[in-house]
Amino acid sequence: MKKEVCSLAFFKAVFAEFLATLIFVFFGLGSALKWPSALPTILQIAIAFGLAIGTLAQALGPVSGGHINPAITLALLIGNQISLLRAIFYVAAQLVGAIAGAGILYWLAPNNARGNLAVNALSNNTTPGKAVVVELILTFQLALCIFSSTDTRRTSPVGSPALSIGLSVTLGHLVGDLLHRLFHEPSPIFRSCAVVMNRFSPSHWVFWVGPIVGAILAALLYFYLLFPSSLSLHDRVAVVKGTYEPEEDWEDHREERKKTIELTAH
Amino acid sequence: MKKEVCSLAFFKAVFAEFLATLIFVFFGLGSALKWPSALPTILQIAIAFGLAIGTLAQALGPVSGGHINPAITLALLIGNQISLLRAIFYVAAQLVGAIAGAGILYWLAPNNARGNLAVNALSNNTTPGKAVVVELILTFQLALCIFSSTDTRRTSPVGSPALSIGLSVTLGHLVGDLLHRLFHEPSPIFRSCAVVMNRFSPSHWVFWVGPIVGAILAALLYFYLLFPSSLSLHDRVAVVKGTYEPEEDWEDHREERKKTIELTAH
Amino acid sequence: MKKEVCSLAFFKAVFAEFLATLIFVFFGLGSALKWPSALPTILQIAIAFGLAIGTLAQALGPVSGGHINPAITLALLIGNQISLLRAIFYVAAQLVGAIAGAGILYWLAPNNARGNLAVNALSNNTTPGKAVVVELILTFQLALCIFSSTDTRRTSPVGSPALSIGLSVTLGHLVGDLLHRLFHEPSPIFRSCAVVMNRFSPSHWVFWVGPIVGAILAALLYFYLLFPSSLSLHDRVAVVKGTYEPEEDWEDHREERKKTIELTAH
Amino acid sequence: MKKEVCSLAFFKAVFAEFLATLIFVFFGLGSALKWPSALPTILQIAIAFGLAIGTLAQALGPVSGGHINPAITLALLIGNQISLLRAIFYVAAQLVGAIAGAGILYWLAPNNARGNLAVNALSNNTTPGKAVVVELILTFQLALCIFSSTDTRRTSPVGSPALSIGLSVTLGHLVGDLLHRLFHEPSPIFRSCAVVMNRFSPSHWVFWVGPIVGAILAALLYFYLLFPSSLSLHDRVAVVKGTYEPEEDWEDHREERKKTIELTAH
Repeated sequence: MKKEVCSLAFFKAVFAEFLATLIFVFFGLGSALKWPSALPTILQIAIAFGLAIGTLAQALGPVSGGHINPAITLALLIGNQISLLRAIFYVAAQLVGAIAGAGILYWLAPNNARGNLAVNALSNNTTPGKAVVVELILTFQLALCIFSSTDTRRTSPVGSPALSIGLSVTLGHLVGDLLHRLFHEPSPIFRSCAVVMNRFSPSHWVFWVGPIVGAILAALLYFYLLFPSSLSLHDRVAVVKGTYEPEEDWEDHREERKKTIELTAH
Repeated sequence: MKKEVCSLAFFKAVFAEFLATLIFVFFGLGSALKWPSALPTILQIAIAFGLAIGTLAQALGPVSGGHINPAITLALLIGNQISLLRAIFYVAAQLVGAIAGAGILYWLAPNNARGNLAVNALSNNTTPGKAVVVELILTFQLALCIFSSTDTRRTSPVGSPALSIGLSVTLGHLVGDLLHRLFHEPSPIFRSCAVVMNRFSPSHWVFWVGPIVGAILAALLYFYLLFPSSLSLHDRVAVVKGTYEPEEDWEDHREERKKTIELTAH
Repeated sequence: MKKEVCSLAFFKAVFAEFLATLIFVFFGLGSALKWPSALPTILQIAIAFGLAIGTLAQALGPVSGGHINPAITLALLIGNQISLLRAIFYVAAQLVGAIAGAGILYWLAPNNARGNLAVNALSNNTTPGKAVVVELILTFQLALCIFSSTDTRRTSPVGSPALSIGLSVTLGHLVGDLLHRLFHEPSPIFRSCAVVMNRFSPSHWVFWVGPIVGAILAALLYFYLLFPSSLSLHDRVAVVKGTYEPEEDWEDHREERKKTIELTAH
Repeated sequence: MKKEVCSLAFFKAVFAEFLATLIFVFFGLGSALKWPSALPTILQIAIAFGLAIGTLAQALGPVSGGHINPAITLALLIGNQISLLRAIFYVAAQLVGAIAGAGILYWLAPNNARGNLAVNALSNNTTPGKAVVVELILTFQLALCIFSSTDTRRTSPVGSPALSIGLSVTLGHLVGDLLHRLFHEPSPIFRSCAVVMNRFSPSHWVFWVGPIVGAILAALLYFYLLFPSSLSLHDRVAVVKGTYEPEEDWEDHREERKKTIELTAH
C-alpha cells in the first residue's frame, strides 16, 4: 500500500476507536450515576471503568489497538509507533465517540440520576497545580502498562494485555477518586462530554494537560530509554508519514524467531 | 460424519449447554436472593454473575462453546458460525436448563429470601423503549467481547477468554443494575425463569428483544464488517446446514500456521 | 521408577499439600475473623478465599497439583488421575495441614475476634438435606472448573488455571454464604478445624458428604462422559497402583504434538 | 560482559526499581488516605495495593524483574538468583524510591486526609512476637507465588505472572489488615516512609524482620528443596559475583527445548 490512510483497515480502525470510546463513556459515566438512594461506591465505579476498558481492549483492540484515550494516542505518536494522520483521525473519532456516548446516556438516564453526568471538576481541597501532578502520575502508570503489555518485542509472559490495562485503569480510580474527592477519570475524553451538559469548569485544562504530559513522559521513558527501537531515521520518518511498511517490522520479528529456532534446532 | 447432529459430540454439547445454563441460573439468582438482614450489594451480584459465566465458560466451553445465552446462540447463527439445528437445540437446552436451575434454587432458598427470585421487571423510572436500548447496548459489548475472545483466527494475545467474557458480564451488571434500578441480567434465559414463579410482567418482551437485537448487531459488525470470513457461499450454506466439515476449517488454520513456519524456517 | 510412592517427588508433593492447606486455612479463616468493630463483608471473605486458593495453586500447583481439598483428591482418584496411595497421603496431609493452620491462627488472633473461628454450622433456615444439595452443587462447579483448567489434553486457550480455580472458589462463597446465612467453605478440611475448637456440630457430616459427592459426580461426568481417557484397562489399574509410567502418558501427548508438527511441516 | 554492574541494562534495572517503588508507595498510601467523610474500606485498599504491584510488575518487570520490595530482593540473593551488587543497588533504589513516593503524596494530599500517611504501627491487641509471625506468613506466601510465577523453568501454564503476584499482595492485605487491626503492608519499604513523617514507632523492627525472614524461608524452600538449581558451585559463586554469563543459563533452557523438539520430531 502507498499510504495506510487509504486502506480499508485504516477506516475500520478509526471506526473502532469511535465505537470503543462511545461504549466506554456510556459504561463509565453510567456506572457513576448519582442515584438518590443507591450511590455507587468508589470501588464499584473503579471496577466498572477498568472492566469497560478491559472489555473494549479485548473486543476491539485487534482492530485499532484500542487506545480509547487521546493522551495514549498522542503518546504513541511521540513514541514513533503510529502515523500523524492516524493520530489525528483517532483523536477526532475519540472525541466524537465520547460526545455520542454521553449523549445516549443523558437520554437514557432518569432525570434525578443525571446529576452533572459525573463530569469532572476540581475539589476545593486541591489546587490546579497539584491536580495536574495527580493526573500526570495516574496516566503515567497507565501508559507504561499499555506500552509494556502490548509490546510485540516482549519475551516474558504477558497474560491478557486487555485485563492488565483495565486493572491499571481501576488502580487510577482507586487513588484519583480519593485524592480529588470526586469521581474522576484521567482521560481527556471526559472533557469533551462537557459539551453535552454545556458546562465548562474553569479548571477544564487540568484534565487535558495532566494526562497528555503524563502519557508523553511514559512514551519518552519506554520507547527511547528503556526499550529503544532499532529503526533507522528514515524508517522513523516513514512511520510518522504512514508510509512505513509494517511487513518489514514483522520481518524483524520473524528474523528474531528464526534465529531462535535455528539455535534450538542445531 | 454426515450431519453434525448425529454425532456424539453434538449431544454432549447440547447437554453441556443445558447443564451450564442450569448452574448459571442457580448461581446468578442465588447470589441475588433478598435476605432481610443481608441484602447483597450491586458489586457483589455483578461479580457473582461474571464469575459464574467465567467459571462455566472455562469448565464447559471446550464442550459446547459455552454460549449459555439464546441471544449469543442466535447471533452466532446469524454470524454463520454454527448450524441452524445446533442453534435450535442449544436454545431449547438453555431454556430448559434455566427453568431447572430456578426450580432447584426455589426449592432450596428459605421462604423469606425468595422474593420474586430476582426476576426482572421494569423500574418506574424508565420506559420500555429506553429499556430496550439499554439491554441492546449491554449485550452488544458482551457479544463483541465473546466473538473477539474466542476467534481462532486471532493473532494478538488473548489471555483467558473465559475470564474476559465473565468480566464483560460483570461490567453489564454494574451499569444495567443502576440504570434499571433493580437486579437485572441481559439474557433472555431469565425470562424463562418466570415460569417457575408463574409471574409474567407486561414488559417481558423488553428482555427478549433488546439482548437479541444487540447480539445480532454485534455479529453483523464482527463477522461481516470487521473480520469477514473467507468461506465461499457453498461453505456458508453448509455451515448453516451442519454439513460443513470442520476439518477443512482446521486445515485452513493449519495452512496458515504452516506458512508461518515455512517463512521462519527458511 | 518402581512405585511413585518411593520417589522424592512424591514426598515433595505430599509436603506441598500439607503446606498449601495450612496456608489456605490460615488465610481463609483469618479473612473471616469476627472483629467487633469491623465485620468483614461476604464479598471480602469470598475474594480472600478465592485469592488464597489461586495463589497457592499458582505457587505450589507445579509440585503437587494443588488439590488442597480432600473432595478434589478423592474425585481425581475416582477419575483415574492419581494413585490410591497418593490420594491417601494427600488427604492425610490436608487434614493435618488444616489443623495446623487453624491452630496457628487461633494462637495469633486476639481473643475477642476468635469467635468460633468461623467453623461451619447449619443455619436455622435450612435442613441437612437441602444443605447437602447446596454443598454438592458448589463443589460440582469447582471440580468441573479444576478438571477442565488443568487438563493437559485441552487445546483451547486456558489462561491462568490458578486464577480460574480461585475465582470459582469465590463464586461458591458468594452464593453459599448467602444460602447458608453464614460463613462457609465447601471443603471438608474446615471440618477438621473443629478439632482445634473441640466443638463438633451435629450437622458435621453435611460438609463432608455434600462436597465429596459433588466432586465425584463432576469427575464421573468429566473423565468418563465428556472427555474419556484413551488408556487401556491395564494402564488404568496401573494408575491406581501408582506403577503407571507417566512417561507413556507424556509420550501420548508428544505423539499428538508430533502428528501436528508433521502435518504442518509437510 | 565482565561484570553486570557495568552494563547499561543494570542501571536501567536499578532505575526501574526506584521508579516502581516510588509509584507503588504513591498509589498504596494514596489509596489508604484517611478522608474524614469517605474512609476507604479494607477491600478497596487491598485491591489498590494488589493492582499497584500487578500493574508495575507488568510495566517494569521486563526491565528489573519487578521486586519492589527489599525482602524479595534479599530472598532472591539467598536463592542464588541475583548478584550481591544487584541486591545492594536494588534495595537502595527501593528505599529512596519509597521515600520519594511518600514525599510526593504528602505534598499532594490535603492536610485533613494525611493522617499518619498510613504508616504502620502495632495494634494494642497483639504482641511484637505474634506480629512478626503474621508478617512472616504474609510474605512467605507472596514470595512463593513470585518465585513460582516467574520461574523460567516452569512448564505448566502460568497465565499472567504480574496479575498472580498482584492478587497475592491483595490476599495479604485482606488478612493482615484484619489481624493487625490497621492498614498494613508487609514490605519493609513502608518503614522507610517513616522518614517523611519523622515518626518511628518502637515496633518498627517487626515490619523489617518478619517480611525478610518469611521471604528467605520461601527462597530456601523453593530454590533448594522444591526446585533446586542444576548449577555447579562455580557457577553459583559467579551468580553472586555478577560475572555469571546468563547466556549459559539460556543455553540450558535451549538445551531442554532442543531435546523436546528432537524427541517430537523423530
